[in-house]
Amino acid sequence: MLKILETAMSYRAPVRDLAFALEAVAGIDQVAATGAFPDYDADVMGAVLEAAGQFSEQVLAPLNRPGDLAGAKYADGAVTAAPGFADAYRQFAEGGWTGLTASTEAGGQALPKALELAAYETVHAANMAFGLCPMLSLASIEALEQVGNEHQKAVYLPKLVSGEWTGAMVLTEPHAGSDLGALTTTATPNGDGTYALNGQKIFITWGDHDATDNIIHLVLARLPDAPAGPKGISLFLTPKFAVNADGSLGERNAFHPVGVEHKLGIHASPTCVMAYEGARAELVGRPNEGLAHMFVMMNAARLAVGVEGVGVAERAYQHALAYALERRQGRSVWTGEKSAPIFDHPDVRRTLGVMKAKIAAARAICLSTGVAADLASHAATEAERKLWKGREDLFTPIAKAWSTDVGCEVASLGVQVHGGMGFIEETGAAQYYRDARITPIYEGTNGIQAMDLVGRKLSMDGGDSAKALIEEMKVTLGQIDRLYAGKPVERFATAIEAVEDATLWLLDAKADPARAADVLAGADAYLKLMGDVVGGWMLAKGALAAKARLDAGNGDPVWLQGKLDLYELYAANVLGHVSSRLAAVGQGGELLQGLTVEALAG
Amino acid sequence: MLKILETAMSYRAPVRDLAFALEAVAGIDQVAATGAFPDYDADVMGAVLEAAGQFSEQVLAPLNRPGDLAGAKYADGAVTAAPGFADAYRQFAEGGWTGLTASTEAGGQALPKALELAAYETVHAANMAFGLCPMLSLASIEALEQVGNEHQKAVYLPKLVSGEWTGAMVLTEPHAGSDLGALTTTATPNGDGTYALNGQKIFITWGDHDATDNIIHLVLARLPDAPAGPKGISLFLTPKFAVNADGSLGERNAFHPVGVEHKLGIHASPTCVMAYEGARAELVGRPNEGLAHMFVMMNAARLAVGVEGVGVAERAYQHALAYALERRQGRSVWTGEKSAPIFDHPDVRRTLGVMKAKIAAARAICLSTGVAADLASHAATEAERKLWKGREDLFTPIAKAWSTDVGCEVASLGVQVHGGMGFIEETGAAQYYRDARITPIYEGTNGIQAMDLVGRKLSMDGGDSAKALIEEMKVTLGQIDRLYAGKPVERFATAIEAVEDATLWLLDAKADPARAADVLAGADAYLKLMGDVVGGWMLAKGALAAKARLDAGNGDPVWLQGKLDLYELYAANVLGHVSSRLAAVGQGGELLQGLTVEALAG
Repeated sequence: MLKILETAMSYRAPVRDLAFALEAVAGIDQVAATGAFPDYDADVMGAVLEAAGQFSEQVLAPLNRPGDLAGAKYADGAVTAAPGFADAYRQFAEGGWTGLTASTEAGGQALPKALELAAYETVHAANMAFGLCPMLSLASIEALEQVGNEHQKAVYLPKLVSGEWTGAMVLTEPHAGSDLGALTTTATPNGDGTYALNGQKIFITWGDHDATDNIIHLVLARLPDAPAGPKGISLFLTPKFAVNADGSLGERNAFHPVGVEHKLGIHASPTCVMAYEGARAELVGRPNEGLAHMFVMMNAARLAVGVEGVGVAERAYQHALAYALERRQGRSVWTGEKSAPIFDHPDVRRTLGVMKAKIAAARAICLSTGVAADLASHAATEAERKLWKGREDLFTPIAKAWSTDVGCEVASLGVQVHGGMGFIEETGAAQYYRDARITPIYEGTNGIQAMDLVGRKLSMDGGDSAKALIEEMKVTLGQIDRLYAGKPVERFATAIEAVEDATLWLLDAKADPARAADVLAGADAYLKLMGDVVGGWMLAKGALAAKARLDAGNGDPVWLQGKLDLYELYAANVLGHVSSRLAAVGQGGELLQGLTVEALAG
Repeated sequence: MLKILETAMSYRAPVRDLAFALEAVAGIDQVAATGAFPDYDADVMGAVLEAAGQFSEQVLAPLNRPGDLAGAKYADGAVTAAPGFADAYRQFAEGGWTGLTASTEAGGQALPKALELAAYETVHAANMAFGLCPMLSLASIEALEQVGNEHQKAVYLPKLVSGEWTGAMVLTEPHAGSDLGALTTTATPNGDGTYALNGQKIFITWGDHDATDNIIHLVLARLPDAPAGPKGISLFLTPKFAVNADGSLGERNAFHPVGVEHKLGIHASPTCVMAYEGARAELVGRPNEGLAHMFVMMNAARLAVGVEGVGVAERAYQHALAYALERRQGRSVWTGEKSAPIFDHPDVRRTLGVMKAKIAAARAICLSTGVAADLASHAATEAERKLWKGREDLFTPIAKAWSTDVGCEVASLGVQVHGGMGFIEETGAAQYYRDARITPIYEGTNGIQAMDLVGRKLSMDGGDSAKALIEEMKVTLGQIDRLYAGKPVERFATAIEAVEDATLWLLDAKADPARAADVLAGADAYLKLMGDVVGGWMLAKGALAAKARLDAGNGDPVWLQGKLDLYELYAANVLGHVSSRLAAVGQGGELLQGLTVEALAG
């Protein structure tokens, strides 16, 4: 059994698949073509993925299970990272991994966001609890680059980019989770341009730790006399240690952790309860526009959480595949072998194939969202930037929610492939199942993502982005009959039609304010429908690219044929879902409204 | 937050729903009508469910979270149950709960199996780790009643029925999990009619503990010169302590636990590694027919595991519902309330409604399987018994697999309804998610259930049982147009058609040995299809019964209308899945066979 576990618990960064997703599916060449990334080319991409993969495999993956067992520890008002994590973080920062996309002025490498996401997939796969720390720094960097003032950009940004300090997002209060408008933490002017923060916050990821000398908190709070609700919230920056004029660290600020949560998973990621007791803070951006500013971070974080879903799924898949190749039970109908690897049983092979197909689909959705974000900032014309911004906005909730659902599902299938061994913690498969479960919850639950999709994203431009997507998918549909005959083509056609029907139904319902509940009742199904179909589109695009490479004799033919097969497998096992999603999109709110507590009682 | 947790963590046995499922859906009256259960009537049913529910609520539920935290402990060759569990078990036995269905000769109450399953749902819901202990005793009782000799029935059976001793099923070895034919534990004749068992077994649930004076192990092992493979396995009984002629306990037998597993969930259920070192044992049943004998226990245990799935789902549902009623976030589109209970948000209501509908469907499938088992033994004529045996056999893998998938899915949705709080262990929702995860694995993974369904159950009678089921569903279809117009009826019609198509396709494929891989590739989807559609049938039957009661003014009209609404909700959210299942049933094995490791590599 030891050999199985050793093989299974190692992680190998899927560099070839990542490069394929970036180039052949997400279209990162369009990003390069803008000229906005002079230091980027295909060789750089390959080198970054290789180096990130190596770091993830060699430094981060071995800490994953020990980190789960030991966890981050709270004692006497301070958090200590799990053994080895602080040192790994310093190596990570020294490697430049916290500055891939930041501007060169801030010390960054100004590479495309899509590439960063691909590199970070390996980090999350190797060690999701670790990955959360730099992930939140990246979101903080993005917020400061967009709305920070010159002082903040000079003092804090370079240290976040270099990774010498980390950043934390400080939003949630016990009674203000999804409903941030209800938060009550206050910011009182000190009279010198700074503010005193007072309040308690929960669920603060890596809110305290011993891996760096300083930690920068971006905190939502209310100014005195601010309007009630979401329009009275401002964004503040408060460092754990004050920064002197010469850049040295001054006195300890008046905030501290009061505990860490005991969680289902990601034990090595300290989830802090934080108390702010007159913490000295600076305003970031404009007063009372904190929510809008925070959404800059939040959207970046949402996409990053989608990538976490892909990462943990990839890890679970690799673990299950390794087990399936070593574990022998029963006769194979394919090989006739009496005590065959369970990989040679059709149901296990199907399970692994569908896991792989869904991972490839989710990965391509996330990386395509990254490409859209890059082009939304850097495409040549205003019109193009607007189109790509529409794509980014439309895809962000799908990337977050669908990919994290895939993460949980694949992690669960990974446990299942292991049989009884999957339920034993030492095997390691159970950790992915526990870790993955947070991803559909944080950075806005997947239900919130669905509401965002149907409530804002779908109709923000009168439905133009969704309609443009449908047209693009039809173009691909017109191409895949070169590759497949019959069902794989028909299933994509039916799927696109379902997206079209559902989209028009929702746009119609949205036009009538009395039908708000109908829209919301169908939101979850619409997001899942979009994910299923866009995922199929991604695999179809991959299949087309693989066929072109096959025809050109360019690349490993077995692996390329695998891309063609993955689409077909996905079409048979996933695209059929569309009729179910469509029925649920249109279910309306009336039946639900009648399901009172009394009707639901036992 | 404390009030929320307190409310949410209490469990209320759904007695009214259980009685409804038994009477209005599963048809327990047919069991009573056989006359084989003279002590059973509707009043007895009500009393048993009330009393079981009360015990589960008051004694077992409060031990669930402490048991998760403390776990069962192994030290110095012995297992100690989690705090309070041994005492609770003794109360459970004194209450007569281990003897509901056993014969009166053995000291049992000779009540229908279907009623026992309903009563045990509350046990598993309240405390799944606890419930496993009596569950395996019940399976042992069933095996001894069927194949035990007079001595075994006299000495061991009454003590198992009274609950003074517990039983354990001892099958798995490290290299023989799903493939029991590969096991190597030996049984050597001692020359006095007894045997000496030697070998190591794993995954032995409640294999050792301190709750009773004696534990009876039913062990699979090989006689000397037994044929290789599954036809050389015999069943043995070996007690932890020898039983003297006067019934007192003699010397300790030569087997002992060597450790307990560190598991994802059910921490309070000791999962033992057991060593047999010359353990003195008796043969049970016929030599080399141990697997067949063990299947008596296994089938009972499989159905019981299905009920575990229902129980843990019900518990997770109640917990989530209580939270949704107390947690306030955002404005409700229904009530206009600004900080509304999240229950008043359509997506949360839909989630809870679908959870409830799936629980009701799974519960009715399990209890219908119980009714079929009762009638397979006690129906008036041989022909009827054969028909009901066919139904029991067909339904057992569906009851096991589909209900446990529902258990995991509902437990996961329960976490999701809690948002961030769901990921915090203190909330309690995470425990159900962890506990539930074993149910699709043990007693034959759900993949094995699917293979059993398509490989044996579907064709054992030339497909007659499946065809009879389809005809019965069509009768119900012909009745529900009294209740619904349009889609809820059309969806059931389409669903039945899909079952019919899939069944005929599989029977056809099975007729050709060269298509074995095609059958196996579609097995999982066929089981899921059957579960989805039979679940819908169960809810439709419930809706018809509820309508009849409504028309007769018999019962709480809001709750009865809820039964009608649950079918409709299920039709919109679940029955649409059939086209997806159908596509996957017919996917064939060829594409999968081509997905080699190289094709699947990253």
